[in-house]
Amino acid sequence: MFKKVLVANRGEIAVRIIRSLKEMNIKTVAIYSTADRDSLHVQLADEAVCVGGPQPTDSYLNIKNILAAAVGTGAEAIHPGYGFLSESAEFAQMCTDCGLIFIGPKAETIDRMGNKEHARQTMVAHRVPVTPGSTGFITSADEAKQIAEKIGYPVLLKAVAGGGGKGIRQVTKPEEMAAALASAQSEAKNDFGDDRMYLEKVMQNVKHIEVQIFRDSFGHTVYFPERDCSLQRNKQKVLEESPCELITPAERKHLGEIAVKAAEAVDYVNTGTIEFLMNQDHHFYFMEMNTRIQVEHTVTEMVTGVDLVKAQIMVAAGQELPFTQADLKAKGHAIECRINAEDPANNFMPSVGNIDYLYLPIGNPGMRIDTALYQGGMISPFYDSMIAKVVAFGQTRTEAIAKMERLLKEMVIRGITTNQEFHLAILKDPGFKSSKFTNTYLEKEFLPKWKERAHGQAVSA
Amino acid sequence: MFKKVLVANRGEIAVRIIRSLKEMNIKTVAIYSTADRDSLHVQLADEAVCVGGPQPTDSYLNIKNILAAAVGTGAEAIHPGYGFLSESAEFAQMCTDCGLIFIGPKAETIDRMGNKEHARQTMVAHRVPVTPGSTGFITSADEAKQIAEKIGYPVLLKAVAGGGGKGIRQVTKPEEMAAALASAQSEAKNDFGDDRMYLEKVMQNVKHIEVQIFRDSFGHTVYFPERDCSLQRNKQKVLEESPCELITPAERKHLGEIAVKAAEAVDYVNTGTIEFLMNQDHHFYFMEMNTRIQVEHTVTEMVTGVDLVKAQIMVAAGQELPFTQADLKAKGHAIECRINAEDPANNFMPSVGNIDYLYLPIGNPGMRIDTALYQGGMISPFYDSMIAKVVAFGQTRTEAIAKMERLLKEMVIRGITTNQEFHLAILKDPGFKSSKFTNTYLEKEFLPKWKERAHGQAVSA
Repeated sequence: MFKKVLVANRGEIAVRIIRSLKEMNIKTVAIYSTADRDSLHVQLADEAVCVGGPQPTDSYLNIKNILAAAVGTGAEAIHPGYGFLSESAEFAQMCTDCGLIFIGPKAETIDRMGNKEHARQTMVAHRVPVTPGSTGFITSADEAKQIAEKIGYPVLLKAVAGGGGKGIRQVTKPEEMAAALASAQSEAKNDFGDDRMYLEKVMQNVKHIEVQIFRDSFGHTVYFPERDCSLQRNKQKVLEESPCELITPAERKHLGEIAVKAAEAVDYVNTGTIEFLMNQDHHFYFMEMNTRIQVEHTVTEMVTGVDLVKAQIMVAAGQELPFTQADLKAKGHAIECRINAEDPANNFMPSVGNIDYLYLPIGNPGMRIDTALYQGGMISPFYDSMIAKVVAFGQTRTEAIAKMERLLKEMVIRGITTNQEFHLAILKDPGFKSSKFTNTYLEKEFLPKWKERAHGQAVSA
Repeated sequence: MFKKVLVANRGEIAVRIIRSLKEMNIKTVAIYSTADRDSLHVQLADEAVCVGGPQPTDSYLNIKNILAAAVGTGAEAIHPGYGFLSESAEFAQMCTDCGLIFIGPKAETIDRMGNKEHARQTMVAHRVPVTPGSTGFITSADEAKQIAEKIGYPVLLKAVAGGGGKGIRQVTKPEEMAAALASAQSEAKNDFGDDRMYLEKVMQNVKHIEVQIFRDSFGHTVYFPERDCSLQRNKQKVLEESPCELITPAERKHLGEIAVKAAEAVDYVNTGTIEFLMNQDHHFYFMEMNTRIQVEHTVTEMVTGVDLVKAQIMVAAGQELPFTQADLKAKGHAIECRINAEDPANNFMPSVGNIDYLYLPIGNPGMRIDTALYQGGMISPFYDSMIAKVVAFGQTRTEAIAKMERLLKEMVIRGITTNQEFHLAILKDPGFKSSKFTNTYLEKEFLPKWKERAHGQAVSA
């Protein structure tokens, strides 16, 4: 097993990874930007190296400085977390070139599956239905318009290197195409260093259902119970759960087997997640694969009882998977609410500031809060606004919802504005309770009603 | 189901019960002493009633005031927690007389099993081996000396109404008997209002192994994987775990079946725990039964995934047990460390004061901290020094120990002194790691070594 690992990330996921490493008796190296000097991940790690200024391109995306930190501290492996360099084939390859183990799939696998357009082609070759769209990259607005005309508007322009809802634009008519393409390309260039795009039809009345797989270098492959991540705003997941109440055990098995076949086809090693759209007839269409640990892996851990990050480290160190398919039956139901530093009442404007008071309702069975928050800490304007993941588990979905309500009501975060109340409103919503919401429900149905209610209250107050 | 329940307790167990009630959509009534005005359980409950002054006899043991609070707020049931009135048959009977449901066994069952001497007689009648000792109550020091002479010194004088290590004295020679009896009787009178005593032989080289059972009013009875609570100081449990590594599946089943038979024999309803002593040959001797939820129920919840307090409430409301024996296989291993406000380096002197800073390391799978602590709160001198229960779960005992070490190192409690470092020393101890420690190991073997080491450090510093 490794003796020392560098964690190339910040915030809650860096803290989460450092904690698993500590429990495995592996020394930890944190990296940080000058804005993150006092961050929790820096305080928890055995060593910490400053890799640059507050801007991600200067620090958390600064491959040379990160590799220098790893080599300089004698780390044997790098865990990339999610976001930042986690899906950079270039970074994975450079780790290998420096004699470091990248905790994730091989660079060529990231290139093939992390590149969204290549992944679609791989799926087509393996007879997995994909959402209608382009074959190959989009080279111009004219070409995009031709394809869109054929498959029908609205369409999505998506960065081939994308992830986390970044580098995506919806286009509803030809006139919008050129501007949307330019804007998506610019964002993709900035966030991923790769502005190649592809195009997909926007499917109506669909759920976002995803299946996580895990494969070790001995060829053992398993899948986990699906997650329903349909509640999204601005292409960002807001609340995730596992399993999806609408999916039958037979469908779960079918979906899992597709995912396992896909992983085997590309000789995938480590964990990854295959995202599908499910229509009203329960037909599944491949959307994309994430070749890294995901934000919402917590709900999977709650229903299966495994530690996915520890398993990532074990598999990267050449060990066998510490669980088999038989161990991975979903027991109960888990929900995650992403707590963001933002003001839902003010168009979800990001909120920054010091954490003046913090009460996290730790205790009782079936709960977990993953966060880098601590009293006296601060939320800076440079990074993602997602500051905590509140996770509730119950024997039933109803019990998990009741527990989540209790947790969100008890939790106190003073000094910044968060979306706690917004989540509480979702939990009470009949559309949410029914499980039948689609991936546009939150924006198109829930939010307008919620704003009206909030406005009404303001007027009557 | 109940609409409103009063929680007749304070501290972490009151908080834990209130949280389960909230998740069941049941309104909560807290009671508090004048010393506990700002306590967390008061802040979390929907209503709170002051029942008297700081001394337990004035408030948390004040049956009349507590019943008046329940009737006055319209509560339908009372959860007694552990300690205080939880094993008072009188209180359970008075609840019934007031038309309130006592969440626990019937008054006559508490009387029969809560009375430690009656419980021994019941076990003997059902051919369960009991520790050698008196039959019937001790009426005088002379009688006690006669019995002790027969079974051999050392012996334990124990309060029949005892629990939580109170009202117990060890006697090693006849000359000590009279004083020990008087002192134990005085403590028992004060803590339980009942000074009747019995006598038991002190068994050597034994482990404290206990089995929790649960029975509903339909006669469904289940047992849980055993807990090893051998690490004790001053008859108080310090660290508990489940299951016990030394016990085989066949022994687990055998022990469970004894416990179930005992519960059925007394028509037990709700949860209770049967405590055994296990000798080196793995023979089990009944010690006593606790007719209430126990401090260490958390480790059982971690390895089985159930919520024991919710089940208590359901069964008290006349519902069936929400789990069957097949659901209760131990998966993995859980450890609980009792964090006390005390100074191990200063003879475990209790520590009181304000909580100036608090960091509880919430997050990652497999952990839980049950506590009423919050930053700005205080630890008063009137109550038990146990202020938090840190619980760690792992697929293996080794993983659970590593997680506990990580949690205790991360946790910060400033303003008072705690036994965190003492627990960390236990976790590193080869005797602890081997699982082979007996119920005298902590006091007779670990503590002397630990004190010597602490002294050595002080000298060299």
